[in-house]
Amino acid sequence: MKQPGLVGVLGGMGPLATVDFLHKLVALTPAARDQDHVPTVVWNVPQVPDRQHYLAGHGADPLPALLAGVAALNQAGACRIVIPCNTAHYWYAALAAASAAPILHIADITVDALALAPGARVGLIATEATLAAGIYQQRLAARGLDCLVPAPEITRTAFTPGCYAVKRHALAEGGALLAQVADHLQARGAERLILACTEVPPALSAIASPHLAHSIDPADALARALIATWQKEKSGSDPDFPAR
Amino acid sequence: MKQPGLVGVLGGMGPLATVDFLHKLVALTPAARDQDHVPTVVWNVPQVPDRQHYLAGHGADPLPALLAGVAALNQAGACRIVIPCNTAHYWYAALAAASAAPILHIADITVDALALAPGARVGLIATEATLAAGIYQQRLAARGLDCLVPAPEITRTAFTPGCYAVKRHALAEGGALLAQVADHLQARGAERLILACTEVPPALSAIASPHLAHSIDPADALARALIATWQKEKSGSDPDFPAR
Repeated sequence: MKQPGLVGVLGGMGPLATVDFLHKLVALTPAARDQDHVPTVVWNVPQVPDRQHYLAGHGADPLPALLAGVAALNQAGACRIVIPCNTAHYWYAALAAASAAPILHIADITVDALALAPGARVGLIATEATLAAGIYQQRLAARGLDCLVPAPEITRTAFTPGCYAVKRHALAEGGALLAQVADHLQARGAERLILACTEVPPALSAIASPHLAHSIDPADALARALIATWQKEKSGSDPDFPAR
Repeated sequence: MKQPGLVGVLGGMGPLATVDFLHKLVALTPAARDQDHVPTVVWNVPQVPDRQHYLAGHGADPLPALLAGVAALNQAGACRIVIPCNTAHYWYAALAAASAAPILHIADITVDALALAPGARVGLIATEATLAAGIYQQRLAARGLDCLVPAPEITRTAFTPGCYAVKRHALAEGGALLAQVADHLQARGAERLILACTEVPPALSAIASPHLAHSIDPADALARALIATWQKEKSGSDPDFPAR
């Protein structure tokens, strides 16, 4: 029995970020009953080798574990897959090539949702791996938007320790460190911020950071895109999705 | 590639209750890094026909959809399965019989965690279906504990509308209604409350209800039991779980 519209979620990176994404997906869905919500199957296996360690040159390659997750989601009948982890998109091409179900790219969805006029300055809060992969910078440049990235010093002293604090559930400590990165980008002229590491939004929320008001959260953008697709399918002519 | 210790979660009933359970599982795990967390695969498909409607005599049978979820979790390699929905345990025997992986029973775990001396009075907040199935009453009686259940009038006017308010994400409205059920049981002498419907804890949390202090949340008990098992496996002699 195949579940129509089933979304596969390749999660676990980290596990709290996955829960945060699933919570957004439920909270943002206009629903009057359980059955109105987007059906998901979630591979929430955090035993993937550390992505940042591997890309920094030490530790095991996470790709085999990521491919195993993609295979499990396909086998479960996912008709599209999302990965609520920006860094994991470093392996996007290999994962997409191995997946029968299309994998939505988090940076495509986020930059589509940004809707800024050319010339605007956008600050990017992300892991070194996401910054190095250039997935956001390329898409922003293609739309004539300026992209500001944190100085390496700030990444080392504030971003990375903030991110690992969230991973051990020290949200307020992580929030205070990650707000320093946001301050730094705003001081350099960023009008909007992309919180392009899924650890950042729950940490800034935990300290009720004023930066949230001018930020975009890629997990939020991903959730909204999935909900829009689900509602179109559900109300369409597909007999599997009878209109209510 | 089989994931050692993989827990299958039969979710979607409702989707917010599943997220609440997954959040507890992450938040209660002593962890310094992603890889310390319990690996899960989550079948979070809320298109299961309404359990309460079916048991009240109208609507489709949810069992085929529940069996499909159990089959998907087994196929994904789950080595044990939990169902963070009390009402769904009405179908426990049929699901357990169809599952290669053992399914932990939520009422066994909860009553084990309650640790009360015989003679104590326990109030039960649950759907009519859970009350009618007797899964908690039987286990409490076996330990010499008195069980108080809400009057049918209170279930109709406060419990059921409170539960459906949560399902449409009206948490404060649901919390106010469900607190009336707790008031009613406490007034009749209940010393502890079992919040035996997964919609109840997030609703009482949303209104910061003082009833939470003398309540047990079966989803919390389930999360703690899974974490204890995982930590034993991870630190044990199983070569798949090398000690850190």
